[in-house]
Parts: sequence; structure tokens; C-alpha cells
Amino acid sequence: MFTYVVTLQCTDTAGIVRATSSAIFNLEGNILENDQFTDPVTGQFCMRTRFETPLDDVSTIRSRLDQDLAEFQPQLGVRLENERRRVLVMVSKVDHCLADLLYRLEQGDLPVVIAGVVANHPDLAPLCARYEVPFHLVPVSPATRDQAEETLRGLIEDLDVDFVVLARYMQILSAAFCAQFSGRIINIHHSFLPGFKGARAYHQAYERGVKLIGATAHFVTSDLDEGPIIEQDVVRVTHARQAQDLVALGRDIERSVLARAVHLVGEDRVALVGQRTVIFSQ
Amino acid sequence: MFTYVVTLQCTDTAGIVRATSSAIFNLEGNILENDQFTDPVTGQFCMRTRFETPLDDVSTIRSRLDQDLAEFQPQLGVRLENERRRVLVMVSKVDHCLADLLYRLEQGDLPVVIAGVVANHPDLAPLCARYEVPFHLVPVSPATRDQAEETLRGLIEDLDVDFVVLARYMQILSAAFCAQFSGRIINIHHSFLPGFKGARAYHQAYERGVKLIGATAHFVTSDLDEGPIIEQDVVRVTHARQAQDLVALGRDIERSVLARAVHLVGEDRVALVGQRTVIFSQ
Amino acid sequence: MFTYVVTLQCTDTAGIVRATSSAIFNLEGNILENDQFTDPVTGQFCMRTRFETPLDDVSTIRSRLDQDLAEFQPQLGVRLENERRRVLVMVSKVDHCLADLLYRLEQGDLPVVIAGVVANHPDLAPLCARYEVPFHLVPVSPATRDQAEETLRGLIEDLDVDFVVLARYMQILSAAFCAQFSGRIINIHHSFLPGFKGARAYHQAYERGVKLIGATAHFVTSDLDEGPIIEQDVVRVTHARQAQDLVALGRDIERSVLARAVHLVGEDRVALVGQRTVIFSQ
Amino acid sequence: MFTYVVTLQCTDTAGIVRATSSAIFNLEGNILENDQFTDPVTGQFCMRTRFETPLDDVSTIRSRLDQDLAEFQPQLGVRLENERRRVLVMVSKVDHCLADLLYRLEQGDLPVVIAGVVANHPDLAPLCARYEVPFHLVPVSPATRDQAEETLRGLIEDLDVDFVVLARYMQILSAAFCAQFSGRIINIHHSFLPGFKGARAYHQAYERGVKLIGATAHFVTSDLDEGPIIEQDVVRVTHARQAQDLVALGRDIERSVLARAVHLVGEDRVALVGQRTVIFSQ
Repeated sequence: MFTYVVTLQCTDTAGIVRATSSAIFNLEGNILENDQFTDPVTGQFCMRTRFETPLDDVSTIRSRLDQDLAEFQPQLGVRLENERRRVLVMVSKVDHCLADLLYRLEQGDLPVVIAGVVANHPDLAPLCARYEVPFHLVPVSPATRDQAEETLRGLIEDLDVDFVVLARYMQILSAAFCAQFSGRIINIHHSFLPGFKGARAYHQAYERGVKLIGATAHFVTSDLDEGPIIEQDVVRVTHARQAQDLVALGRDIERSVLARAVHLVGEDRVALVGQRTVIFSQ
Repeated sequence: MFTYVVTLQCTDTAGIVRATSSAIFNLEGNILENDQFTDPVTGQFCMRTRFETPLDDVSTIRSRLDQDLAEFQPQLGVRLENERRRVLVMVSKVDHCLADLLYRLEQGDLPVVIAGVVANHPDLAPLCARYEVPFHLVPVSPATRDQAEETLRGLIEDLDVDFVVLARYMQILSAAFCAQFSGRIINIHHSFLPGFKGARAYHQAYERGVKLIGATAHFVTSDLDEGPIIEQDVVRVTHARQAQDLVALGRDIERSVLARAVHLVGEDRVALVGQRTVIFSQ
Repeated sequence: MFTYVVTLQCTDTAGIVRATSSAIFNLEGNILENDQFTDPVTGQFCMRTRFETPLDDVSTIRSRLDQDLAEFQPQLGVRLENERRRVLVMVSKVDHCLADLLYRLEQGDLPVVIAGVVANHPDLAPLCARYEVPFHLVPVSPATRDQAEETLRGLIEDLDVDFVVLARYMQILSAAFCAQFSGRIINIHHSFLPGFKGARAYHQAYERGVKLIGATAHFVTSDLDEGPIIEQDVVRVTHARQAQDLVALGRDIERSVLARAVHLVGEDRVALVGQRTVIFSQ
Repeated sequence: MFTYVVTLQCTDTAGIVRATSSAIFNLEGNILENDQFTDPVTGQFCMRTRFETPLDDVSTIRSRLDQDLAEFQPQLGVRLENERRRVLVMVSKVDHCLADLLYRLEQGDLPVVIAGVVANHPDLAPLCARYEVPFHLVPVSPATRDQAEETLRGLIEDLDVDFVVLARYMQILSAAFCAQFSGRIINIHHSFLPGFKGARAYHQAYERGVKLIGATAHFVTSDLDEGPIIEQDVVRVTHARQAQDLVALGRDIERSVLARAVHLVGEDRVALVGQRTVIFSQ
């Protein structure tokens, strides 16, 4: 038996669930997991279904679903579960998020393939070597950003990348690049957004005297720190913690929030509805 | 339009989702919320569906679903959403759980009807009077337990009670009573089960020097403190807290865990699969 | 034996701890609890000490400490532990925070005295009557604010109030009033500050699609929503929760955060250092 | 200036704080951090003080404190803060706890020295090599346990080890060994003790249907899984998680709980009072 993950999004109408379940039944499929949500504000219907079937051809599955559900004009995603999403990780110099992703991957806890790592500094090449992940040095300066992004586009194409993870990548991507890969770039922000935007978030948090600090994984849009939130978490801090302590505590929460976001997106559990995400968590 | 909540449980087979969604479609229904889960260990399929339809008769809905899904031999639950589950709350002398349920009900945060309160002591009658909830004094002694349970059965019948909530009720119900109302009695246990069973859980927790204390809401079975868990939560404690402090902190966590469990069961979000619960949370 | 709580704040110098512990020793005191913190940024030293002694006169204790510690020019607080802090609670129409404070007080979980409740609407008078707490209706309009604050000042004086709690009081106090009672007014803000300032915080949170919502208890300054934070907490929410659900979930977190803040301030566990608080928690 | 960490434990009497602060004053010390706790049940007084002084000789400090505090017959610990505690980590085959400790050490987040790693299997030698930490293979069988423990004793002696960390070490140490190093061996247990003792804790947790799983770091005593608890934490799980998922989720919580415990013990923040720990956390 083969297991497929199907995602579907369209305007809500009566009959979608029936049509989808009939289509899967006609594919000799047995549904293992099914999640759906209708957003009451936008009227968008989102669905994620995992089913098994003796059919082993993803293109057949896709074309049959396309045909059977045509009247709903859905955005449709079909993936053989064993064909894991391919991720390009982008970093600068700090390693805690990348090290954690590599570690979890090695443990078998992260259901994706890291197709490569792109960095604008050479510092993390040895870490990638340690885990035998291809490392691509793509330096960026204001003058060379367009060219660097061209290189990125080439890598995304060549490595057949499904989505990009900014694992503390300290460069700003152009609005055009963000728009082109809308919903396909995840960033980890070192604060409980919308709390402290911009740089030195932990120093701002210290100054403000907050009692919890947090991290936010979100999709990247051209509007910096404003993209749809995927996952957030917090950790309690006391007055005795100074700004540098918050940075250290923050590393822990950043890496676990990012790992959870990559896990969710890697399993197609995240749908985008306007500026909000729908999370079909386990 | 009328909104219905349907729950369904049966052995998993291909076609159930299709059959259910077709049946709802035939009832002119539009699905608003749909959750399902197949337990891989037992092969049990559980589903909860909320849909709206112009049909206003719950018995029609039920008989049509019974008919259309007969081949799956499901346990089927059908409820008009506006007809709230009716709850009988049982208490002894301590009031924090009852006071919280009444408070949340008044706030409109608890989607049930409290059909009555039963107590084996008169202490909480004034609290019930304050909220205009009928109070039934049913004293219990070893000699009169059978008779007291007979009175309870009568109240459950007369008040048309869907489920019973033991809100720190300090008497043990007979095995026969537990069996008769299996899956319909919720208890709040003053510990993070299976941590500290039996009485004086907070004193045990203090002795053991735990760093977190918790509470557990579970269905009652004849096997004391062993029924299926609905909800649990914990709160951090330090060495500076003595046993009586833990009791006070525990009150807070008990009342919120119990309220969440009542909320979940009241909205038909809890399915029972063997000794485990499936929670279709929001 | 009599138990006293002493708080002390001054510029850090070698010898303060020795001088304080000697002073307490000379008062025949035995220290039960002692917390101290030196803020590395401001150089401020804060201390809270609880000790027991056979001496039963708070003014003797105070004058002896004043004398023995004069060289450090400390801000000194001395309280007989049994003489609980007196609180004035201010409300408008919503009752969840006030109801929770009254409930906890009745349970013996809140170590303060509620000297009275002030409201700018009559709605919560019956709740206060239920708990036999004096209710003072002080209506406010732009034209009468000065007069209303004059009434407030009178109540604070007459009722011998230690601190004021804004339990969802929907009026803005004047800068002069905030300055006069600096460090003596606690507010509960319905968001995880600095996340969503101003009104309709939960609606903002919904729009932004956050995955956690929170509440913040802080001291009031003339700079709205910017005063020193005392306590914060969060609760997880999903995409399925709409703005009105967040309001309901928020009530729960608001009331518990506020209760914890009142508890901390009531036990003299909160010191103010610049715009940050030092919390000597248990 | 030199910074020292002093820990002190004795029977509570009036005057200890005064005597200690005087002794430190006489050492030209300025107290940076001071925590103390008197256990009301046992009457034990515990203290941890961090102070700076121009004196650079730890043995002078110690002998002066010994002399000045002799009347209290305290257990006294004195450490130059820069001389970090030396840790011996023991492992078997699973690497997540060790990998995390090494990673945090490299990040500068773990204030100890890992003097060496002992394993009863060779599997984790490459991981140690990667971080340039000495790896000692000490195989154990029922027949050779005594000899293996003799080797361990030798390593503890030779490497000047302060405490031992069992980072998922799957062998049971002898009662004699546990007694000899009482309060100096930390274990991470894969459950929220006292919830699921013994092996296959996550499978037990799955069977029981718990809604939170946890991990516990505790001191090792000859009474398996019963030693004093240092730190615990939990993570929420749903019905959709099977036993193997709980194992994976558990890895995350185990490694962070263990790291926090090592951090606390490494900074002398943990005192033992009977079967309970006093934690002087930041």
C-alpha cells in the first residue's frame, strides 16, 4: 500500500467533503487522517487528508483528483508521503537553529530532506560537513544582492526545493524574491511577535522588563516581521536575567519553535488563509 | 438554519467518510467542522461533525443517518447544538470546583446546562441558591449508599441528565453505578495521574519533592483513579511551598482542568476508545 | 512571637547585608525568609526579609532599623505580617477579575484586605453585596474626572488604602493621579505586552493570527500600557478560535495573572528598579 | 576582583545570616547574590552566596569561613567561580542527552567542564571525538559490575570529578556506589516521576492515555527512581501520538530537563534537605 497526503483549499460550498471522500474512495483509498477547517471570516475551506491505496502513481492520483474536484476549483497538493519535502536552509554565522535541525534530522525526528545549506558567511561549513549536507557559500552585499538572489533561485530550481528555512539568516530578502516564493519561506524571529520587532529583540525585552520571552516562526512576506505566524512559544524569565542571558535562553526557544514549524510545513500541515495560518496539528 | 453535532464511532472501513458526508449532503447539510481519527491500535474510527441544514427535526436527522450508515453499525450521537448537554454536579463540602463551574456558566463560557447539584453535605446549598441552581441534599453513609444511589438514579432520570460531574465529591460510587453510567461520569482528581493516587495527594507530592503539581479530569470506572483521562495540566512549585500551599495552588489547577473537561464533553468532543480518550479540541 | 516583613532598597555598598542581619539580630529576630538582589545595571540593592521576634511593636522595630541602617539611606518598609495590605479595587462593568479576587479572598488564598470597590457604573454592586464588600459608585465623565479623582483620593485616605487594583477599569486616570500614587496602582492589561496595546487587544491578536494570547499585570504610570510589568502569562490558541473566543479565553488568563500580581504586591514581594520589577517569589 | 560561590547548610539558629555576612565583610567581600531557605519541617538552614573580593586564595577564604562560622557546624562549600565543576557523563547507546550537553557546552550555555564520557558501549565514541571530549569504554556485565565500578571510581578520582551525570545510562549502579557518591550522581528519568517508573515509560504513558508526558532529573540513590528530584517538565500530547511518537517527543523534554539540572548543580544552586531539593534558581 502507498500513502498519500492531499491538501486542498477553495471557497466553501456544500458537497466538498462528499466529493473529496468519494474521489478518494474511487482511488481505492482508505482515509487514515483527515482535517478540515472553514474560515468563518473569509469563507475559505482548507483540508488535509492522508490516505492509503494500492495505486502507486502520484500523477494518476493527482489527475483523478483534479478531474473529480474540478467544479470546486481548488488549490490542490498531492504528495507520496515517502517523498519528503526538500528544504533549503539559509544561515549566517550563528549555528543554534541549523545545528538543531541537523541533529533532529539525524535522530529521525524531522520528516524532511535538507537539500542544502546556503550561507553568506563561511563559518558554518564545518558543521554541514560533519552532517554531510552540501554547503553553498553565497556572500551578499548591497551591491550584489540581486546576483545573490539569482544564485538562490538557481539553487532552489536545481535542488528541487519545496521550501526555504531562514535559520537566523541575517540578510533581508528583496520584496520580489519574497513575493515569488510566497508561502514557501519560513523565518524564525527572536521574539514573541508582535512584541519586539527588528534587531536586538532580547535587549528590548530586557529593557521592558518582560516576564516571558518567546520566539515566532512565520512565513516571510516583503513586510518584515509581519508574515503569517506558524508557531510561537515562550519561556519564563526573572529580573535576575540580563540581556545576554535572555539571548542564551532565547536560543533554546528559537530552535524548538523553528523545528516545530519545519515539521508542520514538512508534513503539509500548514494552510495559509489571508494573513493567518491554519495548522492541522497532530 | 439549524446546527447539529453528530458523533460516530465504529470499526474502521473504507467508505465511512464518503458515506457520512453523502448522508449529510442528502440532509441539505453544510459541514462547518469535521474531525475524525482512526486508532491504529484498536482499528476504531471516531468522528465528530458539525453541520447546518434547513431541517429542524432532530429525530428525522437521526433516522436518516441511522439508515444511510447502517452498514457500518456505528454508535451514533445526534444533537441540535442549541440543546445543551444537561449536567448533574456532585459535591461534598469544598466549593472551588463548583464555584468555578457556576461562575463560568454565568459568564457564558460553559456550553452546558447545570440541571442540578447533589451534595452529601448541606454546606454548598447557599452557593447554589446564589446562582439559582437546584440543590439536592443526598446524605450517604455506608449503610445508606445503595439507597443514595437509587436517589441519584432517580435524579439523573427526572432531570434528563446527560452526564455527571464529580466536583470534589468525596464519596466512592459503587461499581454497579459506575458501570451503569460508564463514560457519563467525570471526576477531577487532585494530582497529575498516575502520580499520586488516593487521598492526600498534595501531601504525597510535598513528601516526594516534585517540582510540578497537577490535576487530572477523567471518566469514572469502578477501578478508582484509573478511568480514561480527559484533560490534565500542571503548575510549577518550588521547595518553599509546603503541603498546604500545594493544596491552595492545586485548587486553581483543579478547577480549570475540570472546566475544560466539562467544556469538551459538553460539546461532544470526547470519544472513548478502550482506556483512552480521543479529544476533538478546537 | 511576632512576624514582620521588612523591605529595603538603596544604592549597593559592601556591608548592607551584615548591617541588616545585625540589626535584626539585635531585635532578637530570627530570619525566616530572606531575598535580595543587586541590579547590575543601576547598582540598586533590594531586599525583603521576614523574621520573627518577641517584640510586638511595629514602630519600635521601624525606628531601630531606621537608626541602625541610617548610613545606607534606604527606603525602608516594615509591616507586621498579620496586618494585611489594604486594597481598593476599581472596576467598570465586566466582573471576571473582581469576581475572581473576591472568590480567592473568601478561599483564604489572597493575603490582602479588600477595603472597598470603586466603580464608575452600578453593575457590580450586587456582586460586592454578595461578598459584603463596600461598593462606592464614582461615575466619571470628561467633565467630572478631576472631581472623581478627588473622591478617589478621599477614599484612599479614609480607607487607609495601601494599593489600588484596576480590575478592568475602563477609564484613564490623570497623569497627576498616576504620579501621586506611583508604584501603588496595578492594572491588568488584556494582552501579552508589549504585544497589543490599546483597546480591542484580542481582536488585534485574532487579526495577527498569533498562536498564544496573554495578559499582563503592571504598575500604572502616566504612559499608558508602559508601566513596569509585574506578571505575565499566556495560553495557546488555534486558528479555530475567533476574536470572541479569544476574549473568553483571555478572561481566564487575565484573572489569574491579576490575582498573582495582587498576591505578590500584597506580600511586599515586588520591588521597583527603574522601569523593571524585581520579584521575590516563593 | 575574584568571585566566590559559598554554600552552607546547618541547623537553623538565630545569628547565622549575621555571622555569614560579617565573615564575608571581613574578607573584604561584596555580596552579589544571596539565597537562603529554612526548611520548616526539618529545621535545616541552607544558603548560597556569591561575593567578590580582592583576595585570590580559595584556601584562605575557606579557612577563614570555617573559623568564623565554627559554632554553627555547617557543611560548607567554597568555590572560585571560574573554577568550573567537573562532570563525568555516563551513557549507553542513545545520544540525545549527551549530544545536547556537548552542544550547549560548545555554545557557552553550560557552566561546567566535561572531564570525560564513560560508556558501556562504543557507539558514542565518534560523537565525543567530534567535540574532543575523552571517551572511556567501560563495558559492564553482571559478572564484571564490581570491576567496572572500580574503574569508575578510578576515573572519578583521576579526573577530579565533582559530579556524575547519567545521560540515559542503561545500567544500574550498585547500592554501595550510589551511597558512596550520594548527592553527586544525577540521572534523567524518561517520565514525570512518580508517574511511570521503570522501563518503557513512554509505552506505559501511551497505554494510560495521559495528556502530558514529562521527564525528571533526580539525584541517584540506591532506591531506583526514588532519589530527590532536581527538575521536571512536561509537554502536551494528543491521542494521535503513538508510543514511538512519545519516545521522540520525550527526547526533547529529557534533554532540556537534564541540561537545566546540570546547569543548576554546576552552579551549586541545589541543596539537599532530606529527600527533597532546595533550588536557588536565577
